[in-house]
Amino acid sequence: MNDALVLRSDDGPVARLTLNNPAKLNALSDAMLAALHTALDAVAEDDAIRVVILNGAGKVFCAGHDLKEMQAARQADDGGKSAWVDLFTRCSAVMARIQSLPQPVIAQAHGIATAAGCQLVATCDLAIAAEGTKFGVNGVNIGLFCSTPMVAVSRNIPRKQAFEMLTTGEFIEAQRAQELGLINRVTSGDLDADAMAFAQTIAAKLGTAVRIGKQAFYEQAQMGVADAYAFTAEVMAVNMSDGDTDEGITAFLEKRAPSWSNT
Amino acid sequence: MNDALVLRSDDGPVARLTLNNPAKLNALSDAMLAALHTALDAVAEDDAIRVVILNGAGKVFCAGHDLKEMQAARQADDGGKSAWVDLFTRCSAVMARIQSLPQPVIAQAHGIATAAGCQLVATCDLAIAAEGTKFGVNGVNIGLFCSTPMVAVSRNIPRKQAFEMLTTGEFIEAQRAQELGLINRVTSGDLDADAMAFAQTIAAKLGTAVRIGKQAFYEQAQMGVADAYAFTAEVMAVNMSDGDTDEGITAFLEKRAPSWSNT
Amino acid sequence: MNDALVLRSDDGPVARLTLNNPAKLNALSDAMLAALHTALDAVAEDDAIRVVILNGAGKVFCAGHDLKEMQAARQADDGGKSAWVDLFTRCSAVMARIQSLPQPVIAQAHGIATAAGCQLVATCDLAIAAEGTKFGVNGVNIGLFCSTPMVAVSRNIPRKQAFEMLTTGEFIEAQRAQELGLINRVTSGDLDADAMAFAQTIAAKLGTAVRIGKQAFYEQAQMGVADAYAFTAEVMAVNMSDGDTDEGITAFLEKRAPSWSNT
Repeated sequence: MNDALVLRSDDGPVARLTLNNPAKLNALSDAMLAALHTALDAVAEDDAIRVVILNGAGKVFCAGHDLKEMQAARQADDGGKSAWVDLFTRCSAVMARIQSLPQPVIAQAHGIATAAGCQLVATCDLAIAAEGTKFGVNGVNIGLFCSTPMVAVSRNIPRKQAFEMLTTGEFIEAQRAQELGLINRVTSGDLDADAMAFAQTIAAKLGTAVRIGKQAFYEQAQMGVADAYAFTAEVMAVNMSDGDTDEGITAFLEKRAPSWSNT
Repeated sequence: MNDALVLRSDDGPVARLTLNNPAKLNALSDAMLAALHTALDAVAEDDAIRVVILNGAGKVFCAGHDLKEMQAARQADDGGKSAWVDLFTRCSAVMARIQSLPQPVIAQAHGIATAAGCQLVATCDLAIAAEGTKFGVNGVNIGLFCSTPMVAVSRNIPRKQAFEMLTTGEFIEAQRAQELGLINRVTSGDLDADAMAFAQTIAAKLGTAVRIGKQAFYEQAQMGVADAYAFTAEVMAVNMSDGDTDEGITAFLEKRAPSWSNT
Repeated sequence: MNDALVLRSDDGPVARLTLNNPAKLNALSDAMLAALHTALDAVAEDDAIRVVILNGAGKVFCAGHDLKEMQAARQADDGGKSAWVDLFTRCSAVMARIQSLPQPVIAQAHGIATAAGCQLVATCDLAIAAEGTKFGVNGVNIGLFCSTPMVAVSRNIPRKQAFEMLTTGEFIEAQRAQELGLINRVTSGDLDADAMAFAQTIAAKLGTAVRIGKQAFYEQAQMGVADAYAFTAEVMAVNMSDGDTDEGITAFLEKRAPSWSNT
């Protein structure tokens, strides 16, 4: 099982998924994308899991796509084009799966998060990184503009700063990534422990409320304001209808800790 | 009149609306929402008013909805759902009224601005807060995700930082709120006076220009770029057609102060 | 040629366009807009150019529209309205041309960038400014709300900060403009040289990749996430199909510098 491309280890309500191909800097190869998608699907079905941490084994978080594999596709009759469209479509499906997952996903980055690896960080709901971690959408350096990573990155950080990263290919460090909004937290301490503490804070909340909220977060983000309010009014009323929410509010009003069935 | 849920006191062109139920931390009860909506409607009709300040009486700005009132709705035949949808719809209508108001609205926050209270701050056009003021969308702590506040907050601050506030329920202080874009200014001085100075700066501008601009601000924000430019080209031409704008530009070209009819 | 309203000087792959009416603070008059549009069209057709720098001659970058010219339109039968709509439409077309230009455009600002001059900075893909440069959308001070500049500015910086600049008319300095995302870099050194170094960094990349990426950047920004991914998957596959990209990736895998045909 230690040979699996994606490892999973659960700590109570927190599942840690680890990209596990350190020799290839955890490249998002065909096999890695498939393994990650499968692991995410399994977590989605697991009601015991409330938060997911995504990290990488070895010296870096993730250095993007598997370039050798992508080059091999040039041998196809169409020069590779249909294979590449298929690759980017599968990669985008993994990104979409992270945001459609019922549980929040925290990217835990260290070393390097570049190209599709930076896209993974931008796509996760939350992110923490070790001090000094380098982030970049640097495909332009080898003549391949990071057009799919741009979708996620340009929805996380201001426009001009996204354009600069994409066209200069320059790295930013964790502290700057936090200032720009690409990540939430930087730590100079124990990265595993700090990521787990972040996860446990959220795992301690009422799971149904977090699930309802995460799903609504991305849906409302794509609506006009009036539609977003009409939509979330329904969402909150459904949330209120939950018996555990009744208990949570009652406990708060009675100044005691809630006793939730779903914990 | 000091018993009214929303107090109004005018200082020249600035109307100060004060949420006035300190015993309930200025909760947005049914009655408070109605009083606030009525007060906003009255200001909208008052041509003498150019800027509105919204603050709260007592120790905090606003701590969100009235949970006891919301719990009481559980006695209804449908368990409360239609009452809650109605509540959130009325609350959203107040938020929309703030943005559709002809005059800019400055939130003046102190103490605590949580849940729908934080939504109020996010919804106002501008915001100033006392140093140390705590902001949170912390409904998740009692099992009720802040889904409607999320609409306003996620349109003010970066995506990952909004998600963190919503899922951890943690507070941020005024200084951090300013860094994230949730508020404009933090003061360690006289909050009332600093909010009034902020308001007076805007009240000294040509009122018609500010009204035209505020209305266009929210409309263009929901358009694609090409549509936004076609729309604002018309808006600026209408603004130019105003006699007072003629005077404003003439005065500028003649290096003298304008003498506006509408001041 | 030194009398031209827009000067052009090329330094290898970098074209520098200079607004050249210092006596009028490089105002965007009818003639200046036409000259700038023409200069941009010429650059667009010039395959040797990979990056554009846009700066201003004299003491300031650009102080916005030509108010005297705008006032003269009041003599028309319709009081000027159709002339102003036409002006703002032509101005918006120049802004659109900057973003539709195949090459990245870097605004190089110094002194003052106000109203439509600030809009120019916000519209360029990237921006660098001298320390102390003042930015403002201050039309409100003369009764003419900066409604068209608002389209660009409100898509660069957070909402409340944009609203504050628009309604108070106050300036921000370069350091603050960088914090808000309006510009990328501030320099206290040689502004011309630092802008050129910024441009040369991007000019050293594969030109076809940068062109593909810039075009996709603005298109995907206006799409929902799912559509943006479907679109950029195609864009990246086309980028991969380029022979120079093949060479770029091969060189990277062989740990040597690429030998691009298109440099």
